[in-house]
Amino acid sequence: MGDHGDAKDHASELKDIFSLKKIADAKYSYEDSDYVIFGVPFDNTSSYRRGSKYAPDSIRSAYVNLESFEFSYRFDLLRARISDLGDMEESEDVEYVVDQVDRVTKMVFSDGKIPIMLGGEHSITVGAVRNFPEDVHMVIVDAHSDFRDSYMGNKLNHACVTKRALEILGPNRITSIGTRSVSLEEYQDPDFEKVEFIPSFSVREYGIERFINDIERRPGRVYISIDMDGIDPAYAPAVGTPEPFGLTDYEVRRLVERLSYKAIGMDINEFSPLYDNGNTSMLAGKLIQVFIASREKYRIEHI
Amino acid sequence: MGDHGDAKDHASELKDIFSLKKIADAKYSYEDSDYVIFGVPFDNTSSYRRGSKYAPDSIRSAYVNLESFEFSYRFDLLRARISDLGDMEESEDVEYVVDQVDRVTKMVFSDGKIPIMLGGEHSITVGAVRNFPEDVHMVIVDAHSDFRDSYMGNKLNHACVTKRALEILGPNRITSIGTRSVSLEEYQDPDFEKVEFIPSFSVREYGIERFINDIERRPGRVYISIDMDGIDPAYAPAVGTPEPFGLTDYEVRRLVERLSYKAIGMDINEFSPLYDNGNTSMLAGKLIQVFIASREKYRIEHI
Amino acid sequence: MGDHGDAKDHASELKDIFSLKKIADAKYSYEDSDYVIFGVPFDNTSSYRRGSKYAPDSIRSAYVNLESFEFSYRFDLLRARISDLGDMEESEDVEYVVDQVDRVTKMVFSDGKIPIMLGGEHSITVGAVRNFPEDVHMVIVDAHSDFRDSYMGNKLNHACVTKRALEILGPNRITSIGTRSVSLEEYQDPDFEKVEFIPSFSVREYGIERFINDIERRPGRVYISIDMDGIDPAYAPAVGTPEPFGLTDYEVRRLVERLSYKAIGMDINEFSPLYDNGNTSMLAGKLIQVFIASREKYRIEHI
Amino acid sequence: MGDHGDAKDHASELKDIFSLKKIADAKYSYEDSDYVIFGVPFDNTSSYRRGSKYAPDSIRSAYVNLESFEFSYRFDLLRARISDLGDMEESEDVEYVVDQVDRVTKMVFSDGKIPIMLGGEHSITVGAVRNFPEDVHMVIVDAHSDFRDSYMGNKLNHACVTKRALEILGPNRITSIGTRSVSLEEYQDPDFEKVEFIPSFSVREYGIERFINDIERRPGRVYISIDMDGIDPAYAPAVGTPEPFGLTDYEVRRLVERLSYKAIGMDINEFSPLYDNGNTSMLAGKLIQVFIASREKYRIEHI
Amino acid sequence: MGDHGDAKDHASELKDIFSLKKIADAKYSYEDSDYVIFGVPFDNTSSYRRGSKYAPDSIRSAYVNLESFEFSYRFDLLRARISDLGDMEESEDVEYVVDQVDRVTKMVFSDGKIPIMLGGEHSITVGAVRNFPEDVHMVIVDAHSDFRDSYMGNKLNHACVTKRALEILGPNRITSIGTRSVSLEEYQDPDFEKVEFIPSFSVREYGIERFINDIERRPGRVYISIDMDGIDPAYAPAVGTPEPFGLTDYEVRRLVERLSYKAIGMDINEFSPLYDNGNTSMLAGKLIQVFIASREKYRIEHI
Amino acid sequence: MGDHGDAKDHASELKDIFSLKKIADAKYSYEDSDYVIFGVPFDNTSSYRRGSKYAPDSIRSAYVNLESFEFSYRFDLLRARISDLGDMEESEDVEYVVDQVDRVTKMVFSDGKIPIMLGGEHSITVGAVRNFPEDVHMVIVDAHSDFRDSYMGNKLNHACVTKRALEILGPNRITSIGTRSVSLEEYQDPDFEKVEFIPSFSVREYGIERFINDIERRPGRVYISIDMDGIDPAYAPAVGTPEPFGLTDYEVRRLVERLSYKAIGMDINEFSPLYDNGNTSMLAGKLIQVFIASREKYRIEHI
Ligand SMILES: [Mn+2]
Ligand SMILES: [Mn+2]
Ligand SMILES: [Mn+2]
Ligand SMILES: [Mn+2]
Ligand SMILES: [Mn+2]
Ligand SMILES: [Mn+2]
Ligand SMILES: [Mn+2]
Ligand SMILES: [Mn+2]
Ligand SMILES: [Mn+2]
Ligand SMILES: [Mn+2]
Ligand SMILES: [Mn+2]
Ligand SMILES: [Mn+2]
Repeated sequence: MGDHGDAKDHASELKDIFSLKKIADAKYSYEDSDYVIFGVPFDNTSSYRRGSKYAPDSIRSAYVNLESFEFSYRFDLLRARISDLGDMEESEDVEYVVDQVDRVTKMVFSDGKIPIMLGGEHSITVGAVRNFPEDVHMVIVDAHSDFRDSYMGNKLNHACVTKRALEILGPNRITSIGTRSVSLEEYQDPDFEKVEFIPSFSVREYGIERFINDIERRPGRVYISIDMDGIDPAYAPAVGTPEPFGLTDYEVRRLVERLSYKAIGMDINEFSPLYDNGNTSMLAGKLIQVFIASREKYRIEHI
Repeated sequence: MGDHGDAKDHASELKDIFSLKKIADAKYSYEDSDYVIFGVPFDNTSSYRRGSKYAPDSIRSAYVNLESFEFSYRFDLLRARISDLGDMEESEDVEYVVDQVDRVTKMVFSDGKIPIMLGGEHSITVGAVRNFPEDVHMVIVDAHSDFRDSYMGNKLNHACVTKRALEILGPNRITSIGTRSVSLEEYQDPDFEKVEFIPSFSVREYGIERFINDIERRPGRVYISIDMDGIDPAYAPAVGTPEPFGLTDYEVRRLVERLSYKAIGMDINEFSPLYDNGNTSMLAGKLIQVFIASREKYRIEHI
Repeated sequence: MGDHGDAKDHASELKDIFSLKKIADAKYSYEDSDYVIFGVPFDNTSSYRRGSKYAPDSIRSAYVNLESFEFSYRFDLLRARISDLGDMEESEDVEYVVDQVDRVTKMVFSDGKIPIMLGGEHSITVGAVRNFPEDVHMVIVDAHSDFRDSYMGNKLNHACVTKRALEILGPNRITSIGTRSVSLEEYQDPDFEKVEFIPSFSVREYGIERFINDIERRPGRVYISIDMDGIDPAYAPAVGTPEPFGLTDYEVRRLVERLSYKAIGMDINEFSPLYDNGNTSMLAGKLIQVFIASREKYRIEHI
Repeated sequence: MGDHGDAKDHASELKDIFSLKKIADAKYSYEDSDYVIFGVPFDNTSSYRRGSKYAPDSIRSAYVNLESFEFSYRFDLLRARISDLGDMEESEDVEYVVDQVDRVTKMVFSDGKIPIMLGGEHSITVGAVRNFPEDVHMVIVDAHSDFRDSYMGNKLNHACVTKRALEILGPNRITSIGTRSVSLEEYQDPDFEKVEFIPSFSVREYGIERFINDIERRPGRVYISIDMDGIDPAYAPAVGTPEPFGLTDYEVRRLVERLSYKAIGMDINEFSPLYDNGNTSMLAGKLIQVFIASREKYRIEHI
Repeated sequence: MGDHGDAKDHASELKDIFSLKKIADAKYSYEDSDYVIFGVPFDNTSSYRRGSKYAPDSIRSAYVNLESFEFSYRFDLLRARISDLGDMEESEDVEYVVDQVDRVTKMVFSDGKIPIMLGGEHSITVGAVRNFPEDVHMVIVDAHSDFRDSYMGNKLNHACVTKRALEILGPNRITSIGTRSVSLEEYQDPDFEKVEFIPSFSVREYGIERFINDIERRPGRVYISIDMDGIDPAYAPAVGTPEPFGLTDYEVRRLVERLSYKAIGMDINEFSPLYDNGNTSMLAGKLIQVFIASREKYRIEHI
Repeated sequence: MGDHGDAKDHASELKDIFSLKKIADAKYSYEDSDYVIFGVPFDNTSSYRRGSKYAPDSIRSAYVNLESFEFSYRFDLLRARISDLGDMEESEDVEYVVDQVDRVTKMVFSDGKIPIMLGGEHSITVGAVRNFPEDVHMVIVDAHSDFRDSYMGNKLNHACVTKRALEILGPNRITSIGTRSVSLEEYQDPDFEKVEFIPSFSVREYGIERFINDIERRPGRVYISIDMDGIDPAYAPAVGTPEPFGLTDYEVRRLVERLSYKAIGMDINEFSPLYDNGNTSMLAGKLIQVFIASREKYRIEHI
């Protein structure tokens, strides 16, 4: 190694030239941010097509190609205070990972910030749910009811997320929208009625707006958990289990933009870049932008 | 080889451990079944993108990922009596293959069972048509009129299916829905008017329900033949000739679920796994489930 | 080499056996044609996913699988007088390429023919714009406003097309439809209001017909420039920058078929076969057919 | 259901027409066979690219394209007595799966038959090792030493196979060839020296024959376990972790054909069809043919 | 249409700007050329992976990226007199296609020119064989013996090429190199011995040079027919039936460059771009360059 | 935002949980490192298949799957002092990018550290060459001579790298190995002889060792620039222009490991992940490990 004095100067000069990869609009430190993005590259409990652990990386790569200016809101995302913490270290131990998410979201919530968590599998959402304040209603977009008590001997399998959330939150506090795949065992679970499952077929018949209205009318805040397979695979092909007859990309956008103003956080999960044609990563990135832009716009106009 | 006595015991023990691949919900023998699934891996007459002979295999692989419980009908498919015969041996001789399908469907119909045939090309449907009872109306989903008299010197080319069916069934007994590709020669065929071709553009304009109503109102039963290219390639990309401006997956689902109660059989063809992103195989599998679940539900409620 | 006399006879015999690849319906020479198709395989200014220079070739290959008879118009494209000139030589110099397009379209317009230009990038459209007669309104389908003054130091970057067109045509002569990606800099450009940008969200809310009505009502003729990314990536996945929430394939078809009768030309650009599943090339080919068939049908019925 | 009498006759007629998918050369029942092929579709412990559970299916599909006549041996595989039991039911519980393999191989060995096991992950091999007679030397082809004591808290992780085998077999009974990826922890394990690891670099330097000679010279029989990643990814691209600088396909062929005559069984694992270009499945199928053909040829000539 | 006088001038000006796609080094007319390249996009007899009919197009696209200067020969291909006739019209009638090839090669040979035929399937070669002068030895590169008498009832199936060639040429006039897949029926054909089949295993053992020596030593000229599956699929993955253990790309190059000086023609077939990663098309293009460059170099140095 | 005091504590706690992506073995700061890895995601001058700007990201992702322990050297890479600076900001201005590389490598060299630059295109190497001390010999692995004076009007096009390097370094200071694609213009350049180009064909004939001997024997140090297309596309398929008949992966490994002890730096470029099957990224990562491990091993043993 050369002269350390020089190296130090060089180190600081090099820091201006190089950077490690973050979400392109994330220009703030954790302390100074309102929105805290982080990745949880975990996909060890899924049974069919894996690869959701590559999602945070893929979303960051695609995001580079989005304008910072969100045209439909005439809002410049560089004016929002966004940080990107990077990714949690990989682990195959789902309990450990969920505990880490628990620990992280507790901090973020207690600092009055909005977590935007990039999965990984849906399992990780459980860690966030543990820290929901009492007034928070959970809004899930998902093709599946995720209502198994356990799967493959695992209570934190991604097929059990809603069941776990119900245990933590209690009845009448969860709406899951886009449902079209439920096992007999899940359907026969006496607790099944304690979650409001809105089939994608109902959304086709009645339109998304009335269901958003129902959620919006509730007092209190919301948390939005988007399992990308809730969206129709024509729009989001890169998921573990593509289920036909899903929600359109636009319907999910409506849900995000109409509820963001009362949201304490959001997560996007179950996107597996291994199966992507480039559309799913762009859609995930865009949903993050829509969430932040619509929320900020509301704050500017109402506060 | 070891002691045959032991081997025999082992053979039976091993039969409980291993199994050859079938549709996951097919738990019955032919004799005890109501629905008889079988594959016809034939794709020798198509001119553009081939590979539909791999479809039966691909549908079985995807089907594993579907719940046996069909949520929209609250129906457990394990309660339906389904058998899966496996696949017919491959042959490149279309006449032989169509004759085999003829022979097979004759048996299945005469046993009062419902054949669900997995193509292969559309050509194979002709074998089933030969055995339609007089009261049966044929319902085809297809982007193409398939109304050539012969193609490449072959009267059983997949481009001639509807023409052949008309010859067998006579006028006024076929409705083909989703039409958007017709050659001049086909259009000028004096028999063209003897089939009711419903352009996909009419479906966009008037909605699918009115056309299903027309079919449903007819006396007698139906047979449903689904050429996957009738569906828009955004939903079913893996077809020989993707034709834009097609039916939505949901429209075809509606047709299947509203007509299944009066159906004597169904086939799904022209799906080529070589071009799939995983969506087409899942959609094909799901259409089978919807067909059986809606039909069984109707029987339970009406009989 | 053999006896030249024989070789000459053979040469002419061989010309009947072999042919270089053209659009399948193009059977006329330039002189005898009404529609002049040509490719401009240029893609040097784009920043994300490239490959649009392979588009002309890919469209010709897919086009082979389309019927010459356009069923929805009951029109035989072989009755239209179409020529295909082949492709311009590749160059990486955007100014040279745009000048060549300028030179070519000047000739084609002055001969009273309709150019159908296959890109390549959107940049090439500028060459055509330079030759628009005064009564021509420019209709753009695009996800992007393409309204940068320059990009990467380049005034002819594909991100600057609409800005360049405005400079040539002046205010109130351009409608760009499908807009959903605009940078802050573009939005703040004082000239931004001089182009009518119709967001894809407005199309979802109000329907495409009313916006087509507005264009049709204007006196004079139109030119149609289709950036394939204006269409939703579920229908046209193979574009440089897939932007969710786009126009449907059917909406763009409506625009083409309703305006073709007053069109002096069309171009299709930004399609990158490297990312195609076969749907985008077929859609591009089909839009060409719809343009010609609907225009010819109108002429036959009105002239 | 129709008349059962007829249905029964039909059932037997249909059995001649249809069949469930097996390895093409497997025409014998378990009892009458010498070689017993079966699939173990398990891939739950791997950490990078998964999908080896699809391998048995993919190998059977590719195998159809191989001639039954093995040209290099002038041997017709239809003369070998081969059975294919199909696949074990999927499970995510590695201990259960390994126990099932243990149970199965015990039966097969005790019946004096040769198991040919199609993985799935390498983990499954442990079940077979538990039943090796004392004279059997284990020959592994692998890029990795698979010598971790446990991985992700799992003693049956695919990264621990050789370590587990050593515990069962004791020192000096395992040769692993093609080694080029070893962790520090594995290298420092005091038991590392008890297995003979032959680096792929040594094979390049000295040739494969001398290492086969060493194995062949040992008294007793062998078992061959082929982790497809032992082969260079230029020849076998579809593996979980492609490691450059591997063995050639031909070197592994040599090993198989020179040792088959003294082999009590073989397995092929870690092939993940999700990443295949068609070469890996053909190579796997061909290695099975070479194993059987060379072994039968030897028996014919020597017995 | 505009003023025809102008249009004519423009037509000629446009001809300088645009061109239809040819092999990049083909700058001569048929009459003035020594090497005559043409495509035969036919693939209707193959049974597994198709798509060889797209090969001529794909080779032309890849060829653009090759230097005209062949470095290893220090030879500028623009100095060779090469024409490219384009492609024969598609047909599904193999007899018609082979007859056309017969007709074409007769003309080309009689004009003293060298045909370079781009398949398409191997079947097409038979048309050329019919016109071989008596002194010509046929050199085939192929994984398969292609020695079936008929296949699927078709005597011109691509699995019968060598058998057909033998009938035309008689014994002792064909060497097929790279053989590793032969059916029992082919092997037992009493005529099998009348062709010299050189297994790929022999090439590995003895080196390619000695086998080329054997061919070169024969009096008279040669014709070279390259079935791309003769080459190992690591180098040429995009073939109908990838067979492991093949010839290296370099070995086939040696064969081409050492025999070109006495060659009356060459064909390259069975390359299916649908399965390519870009390597196979480049290799095919390069083999054409090596053939011409080595042949011309020889002529320059020896004549 | 919450209480800043807490947020600060949380920020530091979160820093232990999350991290931005680096090369897995890079655990040191710039100041404390001996090896300095950085990415230059630039690919704006290439003409065929692009995407090399995604290479640094892809190499980091693949690298995670490599063991830190390099088995062939029995060396733990965590004992080497490696830093990873991340990536330079993207720019389309090649002069600016090369100047930045110049500025960065000047600092790194002057601090006595070893730069390992991940391209991006080959163009970027020129920035490093400007800072070579006088005793340094440049060793290039490349299929192309890269000896154009300018290309597309650009003196820093990736096709001009060796020419530019010669201008800076003077004659007799560059060896380029693996050459097999040279244009006529390059070959006729009077300066062509001032670089030693070693054709890949010579390497096949004489073996790689003798050419490495020649380089090693020279006094002074070396710099190694690896254009991945120098390696045969069977081993490294994901390059801009795959050229058949290349060096094996093992030959390039030999060159790296034998020369690393006298190397002042290395770069790896022209790898385009868009075309990868996973092999090329692993090979690139492995070459970095081999470079560092062999160099450190030498230092440990000799110093
Ligand atoms: Mn979920
Ligand atoms: Mn889900
Ligand atoms: Mn059809
Ligand atoms: Mn059809
Ligand atoms: Mn544009
Ligand atoms: Mn655009
Ligand atoms: Mn292993
Ligand atoms: Mn391994
Ligand atoms: Mn052949
Ligand atoms: Mn062959
Ligand atoms: Mn280079
Ligand atoms: Mn290069």
